[in-house]
Amino acid sequence: MRLAIKEAQKAEMIDEVPIGAVIVKDGKVIARAHNKKESKNQATRHAEIEAIEKATKKVNNWWLEDCDIYVTLEPCAMCAGALINSRLRNIYFGAYDKKAGCCGSLYNLPVDVRFNHRLGVEGGILEEECASLLTNYFKKKRK
Amino acid sequence: MRLAIKEAQKAEMIDEVPIGAVIVKDGKVIARAHNKKESKNQATRHAEIEAIEKATKKVNNWWLEDCDIYVTLEPCAMCAGALINSRLRNIYFGAYDKKAGCCGSLYNLPVDVRFNHRLGVEGGILEEECASLLTNYFKKKRK
Repeated sequence: MRLAIKEAQKAEMIDEVPIGAVIVKDGKVIARAHNKKESKNQATRHAEIEAIEKATKKVNNWWLEDCDIYVTLEPCAMCAGALINSRLRNIYFGAYDKKAGCCGSLYNLPVDVRFNHRLGVEGGILEEECASLLTNYFKKKRK
Repeated sequence: MRLAIKEAQKAEMIDEVPIGAVIVKDGKVIARAHNKKESKNQATRHAEIEAIEKATKKVNNWWLEDCDIYVTLEPCAMCAGALINSRLRNIYFGAYDKKAGCCGSLYNLPVDVRFNHRLGVEGGILEEECASLLTNYFKKKRK
């Protein structure tokens, strides 16, 4: 999660909402990414999607077996769906997103037994640190 | 929806699961796309994501205001989330997806008032035609 926080800080440096993601397989980091929504001008380019596409290129397989993702913020519906589609094993996230989170807050999509794949979900890891990245960013923005 | 079906047929020609999507703004088609999951080797490259990213480039704005999307199959969680994130106005789809659909079957994410954007949802348009594209494709595959 420390690495995901570093990624979030990179997002902030390019004036993106600071959210970072890292994908790990067999104890090795295979992808690091951050939110690129504004710089790529695409609503789809959340940190998780960026990380999934990088990891897939790295292992040359869209089926991200035995891979875990660490994200600083609870994934939205799109990203929770992408985690399921790419068959990740576990999702670990930092801050909860009470307004849009779909890994425990509004829904918990990755654990729904009706889908053809499920993930282990654990939230609240380095929660305060991950949350303060966001609150500080928005505080500065409002000034 | 006829154009979305044509897109689905293009997917089949490159041995992809035949799903197509079209985005319309002010009566004009601004994006046509089909499923490219296997050809791009990315679990994220569903027809809807391809169409959203093309439409965004076309209008040079990730906020797809007053845009409607036509898809041959009910969107999954990832794509339903992407429709919300990109602020599309309406989603019209053909066949229902009882196993993974998140626009009426398992969930109906685009109408959830807790999200910061909602879409109009209408399913079952040219349903038989859209569904038979898929059933015929999988029948051939099994042979």
